[in-house]
Amino acid sequence: MKLNISEINFLIESALKEDINQGDITTLNIIPQEKQATATMHTKEAGVIAGLDIAKEVFHRIDSSIEWEPQVAEGEYVEKGTVILKMKGSYASLLIAERTALNFLQRTSGIATETHKYVALTEGTNTKILDTRKTLPAYRHLDKYAVFAGGGTNHRMGLYDMVMIKDNHIKMAGTITKAVEQIRAEIPNSIKIEVETTSFKEVEEAVAVGVDIIMLDNMDNDLTRKCVDYIGGRAKVEASGNMSLERIASVAATGVDFISVGAITHSVKALDISMNFVTK
Amino acid sequence: MKLNISEINFLIESALKEDINQGDITTLNIIPQEKQATATMHTKEAGVIAGLDIAKEVFHRIDSSIEWEPQVAEGEYVEKGTVILKMKGSYASLLIAERTALNFLQRTSGIATETHKYVALTEGTNTKILDTRKTLPAYRHLDKYAVFAGGGTNHRMGLYDMVMIKDNHIKMAGTITKAVEQIRAEIPNSIKIEVETTSFKEVEEAVAVGVDIIMLDNMDNDLTRKCVDYIGGRAKVEASGNMSLERIASVAATGVDFISVGAITHSVKALDISMNFVTK
Amino acid sequence: MKLNISEINFLIESALKEDINQGDITTLNIIPQEKQATATMHTKEAGVIAGLDIAKEVFHRIDSSIEWEPQVAEGEYVEKGTVILKMKGSYASLLIAERTALNFLQRTSGIATETHKYVALTEGTNTKILDTRKTLPAYRHLDKYAVFAGGGTNHRMGLYDMVMIKDNHIKMAGTITKAVEQIRAEIPNSIKIEVETTSFKEVEEAVAVGVDIIMLDNMDNDLTRKCVDYIGGRAKVEASGNMSLERIASVAATGVDFISVGAITHSVKALDISMNFVTK
Amino acid sequence: MKLNISEINFLIESALKEDINQGDITTLNIIPQEKQATATMHTKEAGVIAGLDIAKEVFHRIDSSIEWEPQVAEGEYVEKGTVILKMKGSYASLLIAERTALNFLQRTSGIATETHKYVALTEGTNTKILDTRKTLPAYRHLDKYAVFAGGGTNHRMGLYDMVMIKDNHIKMAGTITKAVEQIRAEIPNSIKIEVETTSFKEVEEAVAVGVDIIMLDNMDNDLTRKCVDYIGGRAKVEASGNMSLERIASVAATGVDFISVGAITHSVKALDISMNFVTK
Amino acid sequence: MKLNISEINFLIESALKEDINQGDITTLNIIPQEKQATATMHTKEAGVIAGLDIAKEVFHRIDSSIEWEPQVAEGEYVEKGTVILKMKGSYASLLIAERTALNFLQRTSGIATETHKYVALTEGTNTKILDTRKTLPAYRHLDKYAVFAGGGTNHRMGLYDMVMIKDNHIKMAGTITKAVEQIRAEIPNSIKIEVETTSFKEVEEAVAVGVDIIMLDNMDNDLTRKCVDYIGGRAKVEASGNMSLERIASVAATGVDFISVGAITHSVKALDISMNFVTK
Amino acid sequence: MKLNISEINFLIESALKEDINQGDITTLNIIPQEKQATATMHTKEAGVIAGLDIAKEVFHRIDSSIEWEPQVAEGEYVEKGTVILKMKGSYASLLIAERTALNFLQRTSGIATETHKYVALTEGTNTKILDTRKTLPAYRHLDKYAVFAGGGTNHRMGLYDMVMIKDNHIKMAGTITKAVEQIRAEIPNSIKIEVETTSFKEVEEAVAVGVDIIMLDNMDNDLTRKCVDYIGGRAKVEASGNMSLERIASVAATGVDFISVGAITHSVKALDISMNFVTK
Repeated sequence: MKLNISEINFLIESALKEDINQGDITTLNIIPQEKQATATMHTKEAGVIAGLDIAKEVFHRIDSSIEWEPQVAEGEYVEKGTVILKMKGSYASLLIAERTALNFLQRTSGIATETHKYVALTEGTNTKILDTRKTLPAYRHLDKYAVFAGGGTNHRMGLYDMVMIKDNHIKMAGTITKAVEQIRAEIPNSIKIEVETTSFKEVEEAVAVGVDIIMLDNMDNDLTRKCVDYIGGRAKVEASGNMSLERIASVAATGVDFISVGAITHSVKALDISMNFVTK
Repeated sequence: MKLNISEINFLIESALKEDINQGDITTLNIIPQEKQATATMHTKEAGVIAGLDIAKEVFHRIDSSIEWEPQVAEGEYVEKGTVILKMKGSYASLLIAERTALNFLQRTSGIATETHKYVALTEGTNTKILDTRKTLPAYRHLDKYAVFAGGGTNHRMGLYDMVMIKDNHIKMAGTITKAVEQIRAEIPNSIKIEVETTSFKEVEEAVAVGVDIIMLDNMDNDLTRKCVDYIGGRAKVEASGNMSLERIASVAATGVDFISVGAITHSVKALDISMNFVTK
Repeated sequence: MKLNISEINFLIESALKEDINQGDITTLNIIPQEKQATATMHTKEAGVIAGLDIAKEVFHRIDSSIEWEPQVAEGEYVEKGTVILKMKGSYASLLIAERTALNFLQRTSGIATETHKYVALTEGTNTKILDTRKTLPAYRHLDKYAVFAGGGTNHRMGLYDMVMIKDNHIKMAGTITKAVEQIRAEIPNSIKIEVETTSFKEVEEAVAVGVDIIMLDNMDNDLTRKCVDYIGGRAKVEASGNMSLERIASVAATGVDFISVGAITHSVKALDISMNFVTK
Repeated sequence: MKLNISEINFLIESALKEDINQGDITTLNIIPQEKQATATMHTKEAGVIAGLDIAKEVFHRIDSSIEWEPQVAEGEYVEKGTVILKMKGSYASLLIAERTALNFLQRTSGIATETHKYVALTEGTNTKILDTRKTLPAYRHLDKYAVFAGGGTNHRMGLYDMVMIKDNHIKMAGTITKAVEQIRAEIPNSIKIEVETTSFKEVEEAVAVGVDIIMLDNMDNDLTRKCVDYIGGRAKVEASGNMSLERIASVAATGVDFISVGAITHSVKALDISMNFVTK
Repeated sequence: MKLNISEINFLIESALKEDINQGDITTLNIIPQEKQATATMHTKEAGVIAGLDIAKEVFHRIDSSIEWEPQVAEGEYVEKGTVILKMKGSYASLLIAERTALNFLQRTSGIATETHKYVALTEGTNTKILDTRKTLPAYRHLDKYAVFAGGGTNHRMGLYDMVMIKDNHIKMAGTITKAVEQIRAEIPNSIKIEVETTSFKEVEEAVAVGVDIIMLDNMDNDLTRKCVDYIGGRAKVEASGNMSLERIASVAATGVDFISVGAITHSVKALDISMNFVTK
Repeated sequence: MKLNISEINFLIESALKEDINQGDITTLNIIPQEKQATATMHTKEAGVIAGLDIAKEVFHRIDSSIEWEPQVAEGEYVEKGTVILKMKGSYASLLIAERTALNFLQRTSGIATETHKYVALTEGTNTKILDTRKTLPAYRHLDKYAVFAGGGTNHRMGLYDMVMIKDNHIKMAGTITKAVEQIRAEIPNSIKIEVETTSFKEVEEAVAVGVDIIMLDNMDNDLTRKCVDYIGGRAKVEASGNMSLERIASVAATGVDFISVGAITHSVKALDISMNFVTK
């Protein structure tokens, strides 16, 4: 997944508007616009850096003449104390954009860093870490990008781009089979169908009706392994439900294609990053 | 501070758009719009509930006929397992709005809950807990409202509504005095001036030139107390810098008017809230 | 596919704005707003009626008190001379909205009518008629809805919701296999992959690397049948290229899952529909 | 009439958004942005080329560095097989914009081509071909521009910029005279008045009250000629109603100033234009 | 000309936003929303009341439940001390909307009042008072409506809806005749042509080429009368240039159709209107 | 206060749209875009020039290649006949933008000129001239900037950025003291509190409860002086109510910090400025 700045234009605009509005009345009345400075950003803890282009966009909206020299690659894991960025340009502009840029960058890097921990624990398996819809409202694109930057794989974007048949839907339709058939008559041929299952019997039905992905909801590792073996490649398999860093490796060992983890986006600890100025 | 839904309209719209877009292709093709259900939300951990009106707005944008019966007051501290909300209405509508409503409510309640912990530790003093500009980009209004709902006091909204003279500005102007005078000639008479100080000498200068608020930046408790005594009501006093739940009570005991805490908004743990359905 | 009025809000708004702007200076200065009338719409040729809800939205934006009584079902095939709609309400409002409502309804019904002809010629087979990206700019949602209303099946919405690997992409990647693998590493797990093939050998390669849909581009019926047999259900099959009413039945007889037809949307003959007034 | 790109900005934006959205997931993951290509567009049937600047705008919104070399003039009639355009630039950008650019260009050229046929049949007379309000919703500016590019003359833009008194209005006011007088008291002095007439008697009344244009609605050629002679330059004359290529020359021969033709915009056959790539 | 509130929606929205923003922090924290009051508006000088519906829209955007009882008709001339309006509803809502409503109403009534003075001085003649393009930027619709409400006649809305050939254009084209012919080939048949003339000779040329309106620019009353006589109804005649209340009657006596007056919109004295509250 | 063009973008856009819309049909059809001209603006009466950057923005939105050479400084007082601006560029562009640019510049300079008269009469005192909320709807930022450019001081921007406790609020709360305390519990620490007083007793209460500014409403000069002396620097003092050029010096002599004047923005006489062309 590629970061698409135009998808988050409104967030950047709102963020700058809410912070700056008609202007930074302190800086504008003290620091001449032409006064130059250099600034650096460095990490105060280890983590994955994600969102440099967002920070860049923030600075360049304030002042497109700021020189931008990233010192690390997007998605790179860095140690505490790493200088990740150098900038040169108008001192006032750098000061005005600082807080908004950091607020973005720290969250995005926080998500990437947490995702990275889960991905690291599944290394050597074919299992991929998926995100969920537990992203911050209006941050779906950004949060999912951060997961991707941290090594995760993206699940559907929302309710519109993949069918996800859950217990509520199955109960209403009567059976998994009926639910799948009812939907197939209506949707474009580009849409995949996933079914949430809670028992081996439901897995059998899902395989029979032919779906693209089968989710195993809150199953223990033994049942998960049994389902994976039964499905045998006839559909992709996703394990879901209360995943944690402690449990992730054992779930991956069952052979599922995907494990989805809500915590990487719903409770985000900002990665501690700091900005320093050197005026000429 | 009052929650102003119109300030976050764009967030709600974006959140619904990014999740639903042209429609929940699963639910719309299985659950008839006229099918009714009741649903409840309950806490899975203790905390302060904040943002009920936001969740209400989310549900009502999807379907204005949903009946809405909150079971607790906005800003109320509740124990784990408390039913905080009952809803009745279209089953499909409730399902479609669920995730977005929870994503908002869990963050807002998470902030209020954390703020409440700091406020509780300053009870019995005149010290108030302030928020900072370390809010999520585009969430300034919402995050600050959540702080207020948790018992905190709001600081300036951004760079535009109060002068905050920091070290960079002082260095540029030459002295605190010059910085204050330079700005005073330009600003409306409705704007307050705060100065960041790092030494007793700077506090003396700030008092002399006459400002509204003096911030004591990263001072220890002894120096803080000395400054508070010297200022003697001639300006309000804010303590700032690496505040934590461990340290907050001792800082409040110095007699400062305000303590600002960045952590209550920059690293938010979602309050665990769950939604259950009862179909007729 | 369901019509989603909110997707075409901007078209309706623009259409009314460009026609009415500050007001119908003839009608507003002659016909009192309170003057009532009834009006009917009837067909002047046979066809499938599609887009009644769009026409309704047009009238109701001008005047929400207009009574709306459709006389046929959405997607229904009707003979020439059929009264499809009755309306009652302000004479002036009916007059002002008439042209814009007809302009929409005649195009949408024109597309549905043409699609219906293709669908009728494939009856008794499992082959479905697909639309293409040759829709009118800004009318994608509406044109595709009209195809669905006429009995067609919708293909991907655009370049973003399904991978479609064409000759240009294959040439660049080197082989179909490389193209597919390169893309798989980047996309969400909800996205299907289709490959365009022009020879039996390419079909073999597409089956081997495992894709969701194989498009047979401009193949004759014999080669098409050979490919369908070889694929044997391991992927869905789409026939494409210069389809016409003359040829469609023979292509369907090859057993392909889909036939895509550009002409149903790129050259649309408006269905002739007329509106009459009866004033009280 | 000049094409005003800013009038159709929203169409171009919507068109690119609906097709591309967050990105062409096939092209972006296979073709490096820096890979260069040249491309040409050529006609697959004869016709009038109109809308080159719209296609240019589409390509340049995707990538402003694309070199643009039109090979024919806007509004030029060209034979089948004519190369109308050469482009150089990023291969990926050219691929992404291709479909949307063609979708615009083919419609606009289709309208210009059809208009041109009517205009050709009135050559040697003073009669001009007028468009109507039967344009595609939201395409008024574009469709009317295409008519102009094909040699037609533009009628009023909508209900707001000229008074057009029709049978409904006359019936309500009582007489043509009353209708005209009622309206004259309200409108700016910049607005023209046209009256629709269906009999010689109505023409006499229209001349007497003094209007700018008299429309002869569905009159045969004899009556038309009689009216034209009677009016004798005291107002402009427009013939209207079921005009066709077969009939147009004989109507023009009556001496009317204008003939309005709905078919040139309400049922548009796309002009067949194709795009080819040459990669370096 | 009718007031079209939707044309000034953006002004009302901006006006309320700039004044209220996130809320009237004084009123909202003191006066309970449910507290009722009645209020009246009365004039503190004589004048024409115009813009009651704008004031109504302002109040109703703040609170749609406010009861609205105008005491005079729109466009009515009233004496000093006249109660023009009664309102009942939420005390807080009335207070919050008061200033914005008055700011609009006082300007609109100010323009109507000034226009009325000019119109009164031309009573008994066929001469109408025209507005100009010297309106407040973004207030064109509103300012012209106010002129109409004061008894004036509206001139063209802007540069787009009528041709106005001025000295600069004539000099460039070479002659009035060439200018008119050049433009006629390009414009829709709904557009009128006016030519600005500064001598009798230019008037002769304008009559010969056939235009809709002839403007006599800065001519004295003798020359104006001579031109009016010569034109003899072959075109409408507008007198323009430094018109004042002192001069207007003598110009009207020359028999011109229109006199345009810039001062009625470019320098507006607010009509003094005041609002009083009666709380229950 | 600095002019922030982005705050008035919507006014400039609306102004150009309402005047030009799809184009200046006269100029575009006569004057070739490449034809060059020079133009000057000069004053036809003495005054303060304010808003040059707005005029510049207007011209540059029409044509960014226009050369812009201001001949006087923003905020400068100039005599009648002063050339304030020279421009070079496309003749057509200059003509098209002329009216809108002048309409802005004449109002802004009109406000600055009137403000300057009040400021001149308070020279030698410490009293500053304040604006009010009696600005043109949607022009708050622009009108207040013009006041500042004329030497005035800006008061609060609106109802949201300062507490202003008026008689209605005091009556509702019971006392000034209660009103102040009630509000203090709710507002951010960045907000100032002003109280409107009408008697010496109210002034005493306001001083006792501790507010930032005390407004003396419609007091005579003797009472004003008594209040100023009593307050003795414990709050800032604003005199308000029916201020005029005749009275202003005597009020300033009482020692108040501020005098607010509504007339400088609610009834604005445009400064007479004219534009002349020299074509090559």
